[in-house]
Amino acid sequence: MKKGEFLYEGKAKRLYKTDHPDVLWLEYKDDATAFNGQKRASLTGKGQLNNAISSWFFTLLSRHGIQHHFLDTVSDREQLVRPVTILPLEVVVRAIAAGSLCRRLGLAEGTKLPHVLVEWYYKDDALGDPLVTEDHIALLQLATPVQLAFMKDQALQIHTILQQALEPKGIVLVDFKLEFGLDANGRLMLADEISPDTCRFWDAASGKKMDKDRFRQDLGGTLEGYQEILERLGGGANV
Amino acid sequence: MKKGEFLYEGKAKRLYKTDHPDVLWLEYKDDATAFNGQKRASLTGKGQLNNAISSWFFTLLSRHGIQHHFLDTVSDREQLVRPVTILPLEVVVRAIAAGSLCRRLGLAEGTKLPHVLVEWYYKDDALGDPLVTEDHIALLQLATPVQLAFMKDQALQIHTILQQALEPKGIVLVDFKLEFGLDANGRLMLADEISPDTCRFWDAASGKKMDKDRFRQDLGGTLEGYQEILERLGGGANV
Repeated sequence: MKKGEFLYEGKAKRLYKTDHPDVLWLEYKDDATAFNGQKRASLTGKGQLNNAISSWFFTLLSRHGIQHHFLDTVSDREQLVRPVTILPLEVVVRAIAAGSLCRRLGLAEGTKLPHVLVEWYYKDDALGDPLVTEDHIALLQLATPVQLAFMKDQALQIHTILQQALEPKGIVLVDFKLEFGLDANGRLMLADEISPDTCRFWDAASGKKMDKDRFRQDLGGTLEGYQEILERLGGGANV
Repeated sequence: MKKGEFLYEGKAKRLYKTDHPDVLWLEYKDDATAFNGQKRASLTGKGQLNNAISSWFFTLLSRHGIQHHFLDTVSDREQLVRPVTILPLEVVVRAIAAGSLCRRLGLAEGTKLPHVLVEWYYKDDALGDPLVTEDHIALLQLATPVQLAFMKDQALQIHTILQQALEPKGIVLVDFKLEFGLDANGRLMLADEISPDTCRFWDAASGKKMDKDRFRQDLGGTLEGYQEILERLGGGANV
């Protein structure tokens, strides 16, 4: 497999063609951004850590029968993925209140939610990725009701799988963000990444944050947090 | 019926007891507020106009079998209502994009929506009355699923009734906000007011705004807009 033509650059990743039409080449960058891109930094090594962590989670999900775009890891910071057209929705799954949920509903950070909550956000930087209801999604035709039901079901299944894998490693899964995409056959599947950039992970014993909130909140030690997650997952070697 | 002890003062109305336990005395104030109370003014005559307009709409809804808190008009700016405990939810019904929907979804003002849209907002000044989903409402126990279904059904029925009454009068019903409350028997019913403070009304011919947006957007002639609505409804006399 050869890395081909550059296709797209996002906030945290770059996408390239390969010499195979059904495979793309995904490169994780060291760039860190927060608050809709208003806060930016380069954290040397972040791309490598997220590539390893995301590969670990996608491999775990494969073992549980969840379809996704990830195919294989090809280097420290690169992986092969299926080409999909990402739906402009962020699917946020929450077990514990943090971040925008606390600001929206006035809940204290750390409040355990009575049920796992799924929220939809419209991926639109100019609008600030607003919360949307299923009626808004229908209105803008961002996804069909069947697609929404599928993504919600997948999101809840993924929550269960991740939570059960992380608990024995002393990691609390607070919340996470998923993105889904349609492949060439119109099949909807999980895409994007699963990493400390897109999840909130707290140490079960101390409550210490080991995710992008360290960067957002200027807590320092961002990469050390990501490194700690990777080590607890087994260094990426023994999924 | 006698006006009794003062109970509560809101942004636009004051509530008093009466000598009857099942009846409260509601007084419409001239105060105008917008943007969560950040913009304030006193518009002499607004209370009188909203009392008449709201009485007109509640009387119309009674004729169509919609239960609500309104009982009778007792003076230019006062009406009698049933005591209800207001649920902390604003129920917003939209036929045409305006206001926060345009800002949230990036729609142009005036875009006709493919279906009438119902949104929920959490009534909490400190949080800025945020949009909430039905899952958020369940989480905060703001209303039961049965109550939500009832309010949504009532809101859509009310939209049809208002729209059909306003269209022949050359008034476009853009959107409106409802509040519901529980009476002493736990029966949920429409409460609050229906007026140019809580609805967007546009002139069908010119698109001219005849509602609180004239105040919000410093268009001038706010009370003239409210007066125009009352006149087109028949001056409050011949519902």
